[in-house]
Amino acid sequence: MLSTKTNNGRYFEDFTLNEVIQHAAPRTITAGDCALYLGLYGSRNPLHCSQPFAQSVGYKTTPVDDLLAFHIAFGKTVPDISVNAIANLGYADVRFIQPVFVGDTLSTSSQVIGLKQNSSGKNGVVWVRSTAVNQQNQPVLSWVRWVMVHKNNLDSPAPATVVPELPDFVAPEHLTISSDLSAKKFDRTATGGQYFWEDYQASERINHAAGLTINDSDHSLATHLYQNNARLHFENLYFLKDINVMDAVQIQKGKRLVYGGVAISMCRALSIDGLENAISIVAINAGTHANPTFAGDTIYCVTEVLDTWRLPNSDFGALRLRMVGIKNMSPAHLTEFKTDKGYHPNVVLDLDYTVLIPRKGNY
Amino acid sequence: MLSTKTNNGRYFEDFTLNEVIQHAAPRTITAGDCALYLGLYGSRNPLHCSQPFAQSVGYKTTPVDDLLAFHIAFGKTVPDISVNAIANLGYADVRFIQPVFVGDTLSTSSQVIGLKQNSSGKNGVVWVRSTAVNQQNQPVLSWVRWVMVHKNNLDSPAPATVVPELPDFVAPEHLTISSDLSAKKFDRTATGGQYFWEDYQASERINHAAGLTINDSDHSLATHLYQNNARLHFENLYFLKDINVMDAVQIQKGKRLVYGGVAISMCRALSIDGLENAISIVAINAGTHANPTFAGDTIYCVTEVLDTWRLPNSDFGALRLRMVGIKNMSPAHLTEFKTDKGYHPNVVLDLDYTVLIPRKGNY
Amino acid sequence: MLSTKTNNGRYFEDFTLNEVIQHAAPRTITAGDCALYLGLYGSRNPLHCSQPFAQSVGYKTTPVDDLLAFHIAFGKTVPDISVNAIANLGYADVRFIQPVFVGDTLSTSSQVIGLKQNSSGKNGVVWVRSTAVNQQNQPVLSWVRWVMVHKNNLDSPAPATVVPELPDFVAPEHLTISSDLSAKKFDRTATGGQYFWEDYQASERINHAAGLTINDSDHSLATHLYQNNARLHFENLYFLKDINVMDAVQIQKGKRLVYGGVAISMCRALSIDGLENAISIVAINAGTHANPTFAGDTIYCVTEVLDTWRLPNSDFGALRLRMVGIKNMSPAHLTEFKTDKGYHPNVVLDLDYTVLIPRKGNY
Repeated sequence: MLSTKTNNGRYFEDFTLNEVIQHAAPRTITAGDCALYLGLYGSRNPLHCSQPFAQSVGYKTTPVDDLLAFHIAFGKTVPDISVNAIANLGYADVRFIQPVFVGDTLSTSSQVIGLKQNSSGKNGVVWVRSTAVNQQNQPVLSWVRWVMVHKNNLDSPAPATVVPELPDFVAPEHLTISSDLSAKKFDRTATGGQYFWEDYQASERINHAAGLTINDSDHSLATHLYQNNARLHFENLYFLKDINVMDAVQIQKGKRLVYGGVAISMCRALSIDGLENAISIVAINAGTHANPTFAGDTIYCVTEVLDTWRLPNSDFGALRLRMVGIKNMSPAHLTEFKTDKGYHPNVVLDLDYTVLIPRKGNY
Repeated sequence: MLSTKTNNGRYFEDFTLNEVIQHAAPRTITAGDCALYLGLYGSRNPLHCSQPFAQSVGYKTTPVDDLLAFHIAFGKTVPDISVNAIANLGYADVRFIQPVFVGDTLSTSSQVIGLKQNSSGKNGVVWVRSTAVNQQNQPVLSWVRWVMVHKNNLDSPAPATVVPELPDFVAPEHLTISSDLSAKKFDRTATGGQYFWEDYQASERINHAAGLTINDSDHSLATHLYQNNARLHFENLYFLKDINVMDAVQIQKGKRLVYGGVAISMCRALSIDGLENAISIVAINAGTHANPTFAGDTIYCVTEVLDTWRLPNSDFGALRLRMVGIKNMSPAHLTEFKTDKGYHPNVVLDLDYTVLIPRKGNY
Repeated sequence: MLSTKTNNGRYFEDFTLNEVIQHAAPRTITAGDCALYLGLYGSRNPLHCSQPFAQSVGYKTTPVDDLLAFHIAFGKTVPDISVNAIANLGYADVRFIQPVFVGDTLSTSSQVIGLKQNSSGKNGVVWVRSTAVNQQNQPVLSWVRWVMVHKNNLDSPAPATVVPELPDFVAPEHLTISSDLSAKKFDRTATGGQYFWEDYQASERINHAAGLTINDSDHSLATHLYQNNARLHFENLYFLKDINVMDAVQIQKGKRLVYGGVAISMCRALSIDGLENAISIVAINAGTHANPTFAGDTIYCVTEVLDTWRLPNSDFGALRLRMVGIKNMSPAHLTEFKTDKGYHPNVVLDLDYTVLIPRKGNY
């Protein structure tokens, strides 16, 4: 007697405009999560590994790495939103609203804010605004993403087309700067960085020297840690699921697609070289996973400074940055990331994000 | 001067009926252990990752994953019991007596409860009942296993044959349900599950969709975390130890056998899909590692419902389940796990176990 | 506009005798760090995994594994000292001054104590004494190492040659034994060891039986956990960085060199078999990474007892040991580690270190 209790996820016709989906598996973040994340990417940002440094900038203790919190909050949405996705089309308006500390419990919900069936009638685009709250029900993260999802029943009627208006970037006045944060005692010895907000200018390009080779075990550990259960990250045989056993044994095994968030974390850790004092991410303005990555690829990173904002009432300024992830190629050898034909095949990530960095007069 | 201080482990003739062996390396379980375990298997069971959920069912905080506690307690027995084992023949009467929390220290001892020399005179079967206690000396886990062990001195006399009587399964009246546990505030949004005790019936089969590819680094991390030191899990060259260096370099390297507990944990995590509300394991009734697994294998899981027990004086009922682990093959393609010729070559695990799940009237 | 903000590290001419370099990224050690370290090497030393055992020998709680603290403290020096190193030539006078506990924050500084330009004029040797302090500014670790570093500007003048005098070993009277430490309640059941200080004698050789195969993901996790950012441990393509893309795709990928500290930790964990009661490292007297290791290598270990010291005013005695790491070869097959032609090609590590072990009259 075959059970129908397994969850095959939502198809395009299962999403309704404005509905709110509460995602399962609330998560209490522990010191163990932070250590494993550090082991995966090796970040040297003292805000997340040194309690005295965190206290010197005004926090009670070390906040959890911004991207660890994001990936965990994001992971909860996967079973409900993107398990039947054909493509993750983009992110927008990602706001890091308040810091997350060890012991905090994150829960995530998503509201459907846009729907558009594709002309083929076989699939459609779903826009969701997701919000993660802590155990006091305070929002800590908020973001929009949109995915292309299969229809299961091709006869189901197309919904009314609603395409949400999204900002090109999170404007400086919408950035949330913790009132605890102060640069008065900022210890540049702890960061190892000598450059501050005034030292960066738009159009500056930083070719970060170091790279990082991806292992299957690494990205699998990371993606499990985020409780992201998208099958294509975990199963060599996923794409072969409909062929029979003997064939599966004969055919060369498939590869596991690396979760896009892995490249973001790698690039963030690599880009600390030259951005040592940019200790916090406050927004992701837009993001594209331009090409897939697999185990064996070595990831490099380039940063371009897009804009610099002074920020009123804060010791910190903001840098709007472009983070470009490149596979198997030195940043020095790649000048054009994207042409009118699309992305260079070695570009894996194009992320527009905003960081905080002390201004010189304030530390 | 060559030392004789290394420990080669016990051989069959070294075990005496009724003797009690106290195993080394008591272990204080930390939040780090739990995070690494989560990173290895990606379980979305909120009982082990959400403090508010754990409190909502009556616990003071999140208990440690049942299988993490079991593997750690079990790992302690390996140096004394199974380091010279030819085969782990089976488990029985595995009882999860009380929850384990971060900060608890587990110590394990084993009593020899059965001995039977094989007719070849070269080896024999040893049965042990192992018990793990916490720092208050309260039993938290108890289980029987039996292993086939080499004799070292073939001239040593055969012991009297004693084969213990073992139950086919842990009867409902022997299950220990924590008096703290209540389903009154059970949050099905946190589990993401809509099915409860009344919804399952004997002979129901759930083909869990997702799979998980094993990496050498993953199973090595897991088995080290359990301080299980059986050599065949860690050494590519183990089987080549008696050949000379140049040969070892020439010959294609061996493979590391994956610890059987890894498949159990993988299947438990995969089987949450369709069993979302089955939050705790209370017994393992029987278990067989039907075929070996190695890095590169992709594991899938099927659950069969064997029995349903109402349980008096509890908001929870019990499901007796059969968990079948399958390698490199979709569950949908395998109907017969075992024939009179033995297990299908793709079946790696056949585990009979019991879980708790709320009854409908009680949450 | 290409930025010059990236940090290319110091070259030989950038070091000045007696200068003190304060390294970045102070690090608060957590239970997560300890769990990941345990998962990597599987040590069964109860001092680091059992709170009751640690308390039984006089500590308030479990101290962090000596080598985890060392690797973390050491990792901080890499960006400033050895990122342009051609070779790590040696360690000397490594002292473990006081235990490190979860919650302690380690900061490391280094003083240049020797400089010698090589006759080629292209590089030179730099000696540094590094010291790690905790959050109370108390020294916890101190060591000397020397590295050969490239010159960047070959025209820069050679510094005056200063070669520091270094002890062959840390003399017993310089060992720091925590005044908390007592063997009165030493629980040999917890260690699983039956041999004590009096049972070991100089020239004794222990061939530890078990081995451990290295995975790329394992050594990458370890080296990231230590925030050691030397590129050759993380990038398959590192050695190909100056060739163009198409070539890089054509050429067989490079391998990542395993950080030498990984072999030290592996050998320490393997050598517990026969040294179960040697619970703490108090000094590393000298060390050489004799040959490189890569993923796929299986590491074995031999211990030779070099000396035994009684230690006044302590329940513990000291053993000065030689730890030899061997790759892909059984210790039983290798009698001569080093001849006048140099190290055997399978020897990867030759470490002279000192451990504490209870004396018989004292527990």
